[in-house]
Amino acid sequence: MTIQLNETHNPELRSWVASANQPDSDFPIQNLPFGVFRRHGSHQAFRIGVAIGDQILDLAAAHAIHAFAGYTELQGGHFTTAINAPYLNALMALGTPVWSALRLALSRVLRADAKHLAALQNCLLPQSAAEYALPAQIGDYTDFYTSLHHATAVGKLFRPDNPLLPNYKWVPIGYHGRASSIGVSGQQFRRPVAQTKPPTAETPVFGPAKRMDYELEIGIFIGQGNAPGDVISMDQAEAHVFGLCLLNDWSARDVQAWEYQPLGPFLAKNFATTISPWVVTLEALAPYRQAWQRNAADPQPLPYLDAPDLRDSGAFDIQLEVLLQTEKMRADGAAPQRLSTSNFRDSYWTVAQLVTHHTVNGCNLNPGDLLGSGTQSGPAPEEAGSLLELTEGGKKSIALSNGEQRLFLEDGDTVILRGWTQKQGLPRIGFGEVTGTLLPARS
Amino acid sequence: MTIQLNETHNPELRSWVASANQPDSDFPIQNLPFGVFRRHGSHQAFRIGVAIGDQILDLAAAHAIHAFAGYTELQGGHFTTAINAPYLNALMALGTPVWSALRLALSRVLRADAKHLAALQNCLLPQSAAEYALPAQIGDYTDFYTSLHHATAVGKLFRPDNPLLPNYKWVPIGYHGRASSIGVSGQQFRRPVAQTKPPTAETPVFGPAKRMDYELEIGIFIGQGNAPGDVISMDQAEAHVFGLCLLNDWSARDVQAWEYQPLGPFLAKNFATTISPWVVTLEALAPYRQAWQRNAADPQPLPYLDAPDLRDSGAFDIQLEVLLQTEKMRADGAAPQRLSTSNFRDSYWTVAQLVTHHTVNGCNLNPGDLLGSGTQSGPAPEEAGSLLELTEGGKKSIALSNGEQRLFLEDGDTVILRGWTQKQGLPRIGFGEVTGTLLPARS
Repeated sequence: MTIQLNETHNPELRSWVASANQPDSDFPIQNLPFGVFRRHGSHQAFRIGVAIGDQILDLAAAHAIHAFAGYTELQGGHFTTAINAPYLNALMALGTPVWSALRLALSRVLRADAKHLAALQNCLLPQSAAEYALPAQIGDYTDFYTSLHHATAVGKLFRPDNPLLPNYKWVPIGYHGRASSIGVSGQQFRRPVAQTKPPTAETPVFGPAKRMDYELEIGIFIGQGNAPGDVISMDQAEAHVFGLCLLNDWSARDVQAWEYQPLGPFLAKNFATTISPWVVTLEALAPYRQAWQRNAADPQPLPYLDAPDLRDSGAFDIQLEVLLQTEKMRADGAAPQRLSTSNFRDSYWTVAQLVTHHTVNGCNLNPGDLLGSGTQSGPAPEEAGSLLELTEGGKKSIALSNGEQRLFLEDGDTVILRGWTQKQGLPRIGFGEVTGTLLPARS
Repeated sequence: MTIQLNETHNPELRSWVASANQPDSDFPIQNLPFGVFRRHGSHQAFRIGVAIGDQILDLAAAHAIHAFAGYTELQGGHFTTAINAPYLNALMALGTPVWSALRLALSRVLRADAKHLAALQNCLLPQSAAEYALPAQIGDYTDFYTSLHHATAVGKLFRPDNPLLPNYKWVPIGYHGRASSIGVSGQQFRRPVAQTKPPTAETPVFGPAKRMDYELEIGIFIGQGNAPGDVISMDQAEAHVFGLCLLNDWSARDVQAWEYQPLGPFLAKNFATTISPWVVTLEALAPYRQAWQRNAADPQPLPYLDAPDLRDSGAFDIQLEVLLQTEKMRADGAAPQRLSTSNFRDSYWTVAQLVTHHTVNGCNLNPGDLLGSGTQSGPAPEEAGSLLELTEGGKKSIALSNGEQRLFLEDGDTVILRGWTQKQGLPRIGFGEVTGTLLPARS
């Protein structure tokens, strides 16, 4: 799929929503990410919205006042039904012509020189007054393992003699995760209780997990799906992706170590996964694409995972960071502390490769299905996307600036993931953030 | 949970649906399994039904003519909504008091001496005229690995030096499967195409899978779920199970061998899983419960997986069999040939243990979630629940009675699983069957 730019990418565009024009805003008029929101505490149905500056535009309300008139793709019952739904699945199912027309329409009505401002102003809600739901009903959730650096570092801890398995450089390794326990930013969950086997113990013990960790990931929302038996080829793969979000794949390392063989992680991961409320479309990210490449020493992808434009623009330049706010920091009014940074461009596999690999055997994807990228750790040790890596398997403690220390997460810890892309002469396109808090185990 | 019998279990009961009184019927009046059906080719909405003999009773139609009048649990809007739905999820969510009242009401109106409800005869459809849908919208699907005999046999093939991993006898090993590709009996699916690495090859190859297999399993439908963070303890576990079905976990062994480490099976399994249309309730199976026991040499379950009545009645005596009908057999009008038999009572873990283990970390289950038991292989080699085991890893071919041979499945092969329970003086309670057919790979 060739990356094409259009008028919505014009870096000169400004919005009549003034906060969108601040250079540090995650949500300038060139971004326009989708989410699902309502007024905080209102108990009304959730609604589809687009973030613009520090505001949210209510899309059903905008549609009702004919803000999208004149776009043939945005007329008719299917679009009206989709835009009035309490989640994005139906809009995701409509495909790129509709997403693209909607983006163009939104860009035009939100521009500083747009007509009809007054009525649209009534369709705004400040983000500070909103609460969010999951952007979609997630039918199936698949988590991949695309960071060679993470796989190598973790492999060393779990299998010192055999860190990187022979399939890693050939197969985009993935596994099915739990959809029911995925929550939106702000999720709070109890420390899981489960079996573990301490290295020195003869038999397993039962109790709260001790090695609680986060994983810094990108989430990939599927748009249009495929019928059972059909493959989504590399040249079509990105047309089936609605957009990207931030994803924290919480993990209990001591549970994982004891349970994961031979069928993979289960209770170590399925208690909670948290994603950001905003889904950034691939179209918004188009100007920030990067070349994807393989080291000459590594195998080139098999033909079914290769494509002509892969090496020009297969990757996404998305800067990622992890921050920690402990209970003490919150009590003291201290800001969260950054633990690490990395970048999605270092992923060993691309988004398109994940979609194609997932379907090459005929497995059917549905609108709203979620893929996780796997922990995004960069090549340098300080770019690790989990505590397991940063503390070298729980051996080297992290000194926080307020005097606290961490090997793994403690009760009351809030983890914050942020992501954004930036490029000379272009606005910052942000993902906002995803936060989640570890509560004490049930008593 | 103590097993209690009531008037619906009375072996003397006969139905006015004459075919239900045949001793070889899977669906006597003591069974009453639930499913979702419509008239074949009608393109109408699917409806909830109960199998009785060779007929299906349409429950919404029966409710509409007040067949369930007089049962307080079966009045009100929640029940009416649930029974009129095109899948069982809402009925599953209503819990044991409603399921049990409905079973009692059905038993009474279907008895030979029932007061003449001639109108109920109009609510019947012959099974021969019906087609089925999945009994529920399956939010999440989890597959376990509860047969020690299967785990040992397969372990020998994948890890000759390390067949049974140290966690097996302590942890009910499970992993998340793909919900989107689960189909109801009659499912046809293409041979998957994927990466494999032949043992003698230097690098992987891409093409149709060569080692296609079935897996003989029991499916477990969750009824009422649990809130995130809550555990379903052993004494409550069976009250959260709506019922059991048959499940075929199709597997591509050559894909599995190359991809499964370290995160478990993925493309090797997620192209198709097939279940039977009928869900047999735990109440129907109550008279057929069996003692569950551990060999003295094996560890007893940790306390969270133990319960007072486990050793009296924790297991289910369900006889299972696998049959194969090749394309040639079909062309010749030959009956399917039995490949093996086994029994669910040989499972190393019980249904209750699977539910409790799944939730002990706070993972939330929802109504309609499906658990697979894992391949049910018995202690004897001929009781193996997969071709991988029966052919000793594809080395020892199976001679079919018509002169054909099999190491793994060939295009056009139909696999049929059947299950039933029987006991002296009690009627046969059957699961019907689940069939599925392997089609050629896409060209």
